Amino acid sequence: MPVSLASATRRGFLIGFAAINAVAVWSAAAFARTGPLPSWNDGVTKTSIIDFVGRVTSPGGVDFVPPAERVAVFDNDGTLWCEQPIYFQAAFGLDSVRAMAPQHPEWKQQQPFKAFLSGNKDALAAQGEKGLLTLIAASHSGVTTDAYAASVADWLTRAQHPRFHRPYNELVYQPMVELLASLRANGFKTFIVSGGGVEFMRVWAEKAYGIPPEQVVGSSGVTQFKIDADGKPVLMKLPKVEFIADGPGKPSGINRFIGRRPILAFGNSDGDHQMLQWTAAGPGARFVGIVHHTDAAREYSYDRESKIGKLDKAWDEAMQLGWTVVDMTKDWTTMFASERGTAEASQ
Amino acid sequence: MPVSLASATRRGFLIGFAAINAVAVWSAAAFARTGPLPSWNDGVTKTSIIDFVGRVTSPGGVDFVPPAERVAVFDNDGTLWCEQPIYFQAAFGLDSVRAMAPQHPEWKQQQPFKAFLSGNKDALAAQGEKGLLTLIAASHSGVTTDAYAASVADWLTRAQHPRFHRPYNELVYQPMVELLASLRANGFKTFIVSGGGVEFMRVWAEKAYGIPPEQVVGSSGVTQFKIDADGKPVLMKLPKVEFIADGPGKPSGINRFIGRRPILAFGNSDGDHQMLQWTAAGPGARFVGIVHHTDAAREYSYDRESKIGKLDKAWDEAMQLGWTVVDMTKDWTTMFASERGTAEASQ
Repeated sequence: MPVSLASATRRGFLIGFAAINAVAVWSAAAFARTGPLPSWNDGVTKTSIIDFVGRVTSPGGVDFVPPAERVAVFDNDGTLWCEQPIYFQAAFGLDSVRAMAPQHPEWKQQQPFKAFLSGNKDALAAQGEKGLLTLIAASHSGVTTDAYAASVADWLTRAQHPRFHRPYNELVYQPMVELLASLRANGFKTFIVSGGGVEFMRVWAEKAYGIPPEQVVGSSGVTQFKIDADGKPVLMKLPKVEFIADGPGKPSGINRFIGRRPILAFGNSDGDHQMLQWTAAGPGARFVGIVHHTDAAREYSYDRESKIGKLDKAWDEAMQLGWTVVDMTKDWTTMFASERGTAEASQ
Repeated sequence: MPVSLASATRRGFLIGFAAINAVAVWSAAAFARTGPLPSWNDGVTKTSIIDFVGRVTSPGGVDFVPPAERVAVFDNDGTLWCEQPIYFQAAFGLDSVRAMAPQHPEWKQQQPFKAFLSGNKDALAAQGEKGLLTLIAASHSGVTTDAYAASVADWLTRAQHPRFHRPYNELVYQPMVELLASLRANGFKTFIVSGGGVEFMRVWAEKAYGIPPEQVVGSSGVTQFKIDADGKPVLMKLPKVEFIADGPGKPSGINRFIGRRPILAFGNSDGDHQMLQWTAAGPGARFVGIVHHTDAAREYSYDRESKIGKLDKAWDEAMQLGWTVVDMTKDWTTMFASERGTAEASQ
């Protein structure tokens, strides 16, 4: 009797569980169609995001966080938009340096210009983020901040990605655009914290992601204030790197620019490791996410061995500490915002 | 006939004008009682502010500015709070250095420590903003950013201004607190852009002014990310100045941190001159204001000859270009927020 009672109870539990599951699946399907993350497949990853947002926004709950403290930070290259086969800012630098090369014969023997001008992608990648930024800073010295922004905007209208044959700023990840919008709808303030140049990103980030210029943290070159020949104040870009917002520079950049510890952070590489650690170490509920590039068919597949966006130590720590790792193949129904038409990122 | 017609017209015009004026005066008086700037006396200064805000927020008007571009920047020392007889951050540094001095005998012979420890205010002022920041950075090396913020908060509960015998963070100008709140109510985003230390200001700025940490731009020291003995990530403050947001550093700081040119800027000294020029030089409607310290009875009176908050070149340019110069004696009914009770800065 105890056995059959136990069996009956267990069957009843299983029947009930199945019924609950059916409701859950139905709800999730309905949510997927009408909810805030339509390009995310149902599963552990999506559930972990929705659960976290629900907890920190429930007044009276143990994990409630006041809106002013709902700071969310996102790496850009490889996290919000594609970063292969080379960082898009490097593509811009390459095009700019090519255009300027006739006036600079000395560049043929000088790195990182030599790597750029010879079209050697491996040599270019070997220069790393700092080499890239040195090049960008140098190739744009002597221009005003306004002229630089105009040249980025102009390039975006002309340049195309070598594989996808679309403007680079259309290669933003639709699921991440939806996540940003959903967080903002839940009272979060969304920031970019990227090793990329802050002035490069600000030109297109607001339209692509709904993130205004003052919420973009990035690497920067020194600027110099001067009054030009027409008596107009301008800021000249000097060929000198001022700050690199990569690796340990990310928590330093968060401290300097934002001044609050994030409660949610997303990255995709070891360059984001310290930002993820810094976010995870705060008190209260935290969400730490990593975008894992697993989808060679729709995008690229790379991690521990990649020269760009290497994901090794941060991945180990994610698995050890239970951070959320997004599998692009399994978790995302759509890759690029441009597949769904224009990215309608709202403020 | 033409003469008397002209006279009649002129009289009619004058009568009409007087009537309009009466309405205007009545409205302004009502506005002063119930409006957003109750601590500002009626007059040219208050009118110029109200007029500007009205123009940039009127949809369809020629001067309309979309909310996202309504960036307003304010110097802090001498513009939002008192800066005499020494910068308040210097007072904090002095107290901190005094507390640490027994462990640093070498400071007795070393500037700017010598000036601090001997209590020589003139020698201290002669070290300028950079000397001050060098001292602050040095005197706080080896502490984490969290420990530093806690020490500032603790100091504010204990220290008192030598003349007003009140905590320093109660010596914020009530009229400016009202202006900040009024601008935010009109869709502006308000920022501090100060030569003061960004980590010093963020501790109390949100409560005093309603300006959140991520909208405080200031000077900074280098921070270093490390994992401490307990395995916890921390940011250590190093004795190295990283960025001085004073003079030409202000437009550079605006470019780096905010990424949009302000449409309204307020300062009080030549250290704000380039920020005011940068703001004024943008297209469309602009408001440039200077707080002129004229009130020795209620606060301090100083300008061209002052070692702290020297106002000379910026004042000349203000008069030449018609920028708004606030006369604290004439324009402000109330000086400090603490005279009206707690500063109820919202948002």
